[in-house]
Amino acid sequence: METTEPEANVTRIMLAVNESSIKGYPHASISSRGAFEWTIQKIVRSNTSGFKLLFLHVQAPHEDGFEDMDSIYAFPEDFKTMKHRDQTRGLRLLEYFVTRCHEIGVACEAWVKEGDPKEVICRQAKRMRPDLLVVGNRGLGPFQRVIAGTVSEFCVKHAECPVVSIKRSPGETPRDPVDD
Amino acid sequence: METTEPEANVTRIMLAVNESSIKGYPHASISSRGAFEWTIQKIVRSNTSGFKLLFLHVQAPHEDGFEDMDSIYAFPEDFKTMKHRDQTRGLRLLEYFVTRCHEIGVACEAWVKEGDPKEVICRQAKRMRPDLLVVGNRGLGPFQRVIAGTVSEFCVKHAECPVVSIKRSPGETPRDPVDD
Repeated sequence: METTEPEANVTRIMLAVNESSIKGYPHASISSRGAFEWTIQKIVRSNTSGFKLLFLHVQAPHEDGFEDMDSIYAFPEDFKTMKHRDQTRGLRLLEYFVTRCHEIGVACEAWVKEGDPKEVICRQAKRMRPDLLVVGNRGLGPFQRVIAGTVSEFCVKHAECPVVSIKRSPGETPRDPVDD
Repeated sequence: METTEPEANVTRIMLAVNESSIKGYPHASISSRGAFEWTIQKIVRSNTSGFKLLFLHVQAPHEDGFEDMDSIYAFPEDFKTMKHRDQTRGLRLLEYFVTRCHEIGVACEAWVKEGDPKEVICRQAKRMRPDLLVVGNRGLGPFQRVIAGTVSEFCVKHAECPVVSIKRSPGETPRDPVDD
């Protein structure tokens, strides 16, 4: 991880992304994709050279013996050189977003960290100093929030940079709203 | 107020702005100006035709017998046609932001509402359906927050659109941090 000095001339937007909890559902969670689409459509718009997206995925410790922390992925090709055992779900997730960025033509970086998502996101935001942190949000009610915890509420409260939380649209809510 | 249907092709950013509480300080509060500058520099950037800014100022009821609610101000000239008694501090505030937008070349609208700021902001956000609501934030500590109340925390929690709260920079904090 070398990039700690913000580039003066682009707006750096950090997106915290996670995997879907729905069995058989491909990779990125509904709220992660929603946060990404909102960022592209409403903020970046046609000004692709004015922005850089920083994708962070946080994996719970020892979840699947993931060993490729601290690598940076910025091009779709970066994912092809990995050994098969490293092609975990976490990297598939980043591959999805990095590939989308390259199709759109917006610069990006993506990396994986291990730990408690809400704390790692705030720590990485402090280190990377993005201009904006975008987090997805399942839009749960108060009772569901107590059960599921919400990373977005924690980040809004504790991250040192501006944070925007993008609620999942009601039409995309799965059968169990705690799923994503 | 006619514009309730979002224009499909611009990103509509609503900014809640207020006056400085510092005696002799000109018009816009430090945190309002910070929120505006952040929006221009980090989000709009050079893409002025891709955005429209919606400025809302909420005045406490009967504060100064203000009688020009529900007018929309979109051009600097709109302020010149007012009668002298209507040139209250609230409109001077909107004049500042509308003039800045015209200098920069970004479309805008500005209006004044009366009531409790946090509730009126959320109600107007529901009516106007902006893509993003930007609110300034004095960055007070927990004890000061209890005394001063924070409009931004309420909006983050209750507004139906994405909300970003922009903290006042430590270098701009006045002698009494509750001031703005």
